[in-house]
Amino acid sequence: MTSEREQRLKNVLDKRQQDLTVVLENVFDPHNISAVMRTCDAVGIQEIFVLNTKISRHKKWGARSSSSAAKWLTIHQHTDAHSCFVELRKKFPLILTTHLSSSAVSLYEINFSNPVALVFGNEHDGVSEEIRALADGNFIIPQVGMIRSLNISVACAVSLYEAFRQKKAAHHYDHVKLGVEDYSTLWKDWSLNNG
Amino acid sequence: MTSEREQRLKNVLDKRQQDLTVVLENVFDPHNISAVMRTCDAVGIQEIFVLNTKISRHKKWGARSSSSAAKWLTIHQHTDAHSCFVELRKKFPLILTTHLSSSAVSLYEINFSNPVALVFGNEHDGVSEEIRALADGNFIIPQVGMIRSLNISVACAVSLYEAFRQKKAAHHYDHVKLGVEDYSTLWKDWSLNNG
Repeated sequence: MTSEREQRLKNVLDKRQQDLTVVLENVFDPHNISAVMRTCDAVGIQEIFVLNTKISRHKKWGARSSSSAAKWLTIHQHTDAHSCFVELRKKFPLILTTHLSSSAVSLYEINFSNPVALVFGNEHDGVSEEIRALADGNFIIPQVGMIRSLNISVACAVSLYEAFRQKKAAHHYDHVKLGVEDYSTLWKDWSLNNG
Repeated sequence: MTSEREQRLKNVLDKRQQDLTVVLENVFDPHNISAVMRTCDAVGIQEIFVLNTKISRHKKWGARSSSSAAKWLTIHQHTDAHSCFVELRKKFPLILTTHLSSSAVSLYEINFSNPVALVFGNEHDGVSEEIRALADGNFIIPQVGMIRSLNISVACAVSLYEAFRQKKAAHHYDHVKLGVEDYSTLWKDWSLNNG
């Protein structure tokens, strides 16, 4: 590995945020999953959760492309909502879904200085009742148009970049946030895969 | 038309922003165009510019779907960059492209309280040299990941929602911004199409 490449990997690891994650519940379209992963990588998310209770386990993540974001992310796959939430709860006291409800808060009211997990649901049915019962609340992306629905990869990008904006303002990208052990494990994986 | 429907159309017209627009230069994929249009509608953009100097004129805009955003937007189609910019310049003193350059400013440094047009380029080649020469500068969406490229509909959504956030904070959605004539013309179109 060239020292330039080494520096590049470290620069990215230095900015990974362990206190922000995305949960994809039964998201079906591989293009959506792939776009969400690119956005996660772009804002420095390392771990994401893929929960498939209704659709079969995904086999690949747009692996065709050598620039696939999947290989730079830690992907937790679950087929059971409860086991997924047990793992989520270890790091995320606040878990919000995108389900539209009267008690939903605006995306812009979420405080992303604290750890947050955001759940995005299936393209047709949205977030399930089971997951809504397990989560802490709902948020919406404000809209003032006629259509009132955004593609899931668009909704996820708007949400994650609002988190990015807030976290940048709160200096979350100014110092290393990964724990020593996580950093070391990822560094080994990344440098082996890309040496 | 029911009074409920009438109120719905008016609520949307009341929030349309004539001082923000998107230019799509030779954007090829209809899914990208369709997703961009949905986001434009969602943040209250009324007019968009489609400039096709290299690819043939688009015939339809995802018209299959009855909820297509295209029918709620005013779409200016151009095949010549100069005529497109003559029309743009009537309303937009500031035109920024997404071309990555050393002089690019961050999305978050753009002041969306003032009129701005944002140009997004072709999926493969980006914004052309011709357009960069005509525009006032470049902006980038900050990224801290390994991949360093976002899908065009994602990049557009992140940009437009940052504009939305700023404009909302600056009370741009608190009063009607369309001119009386534009409002009246659109109202006639919309109520005829959807009576």
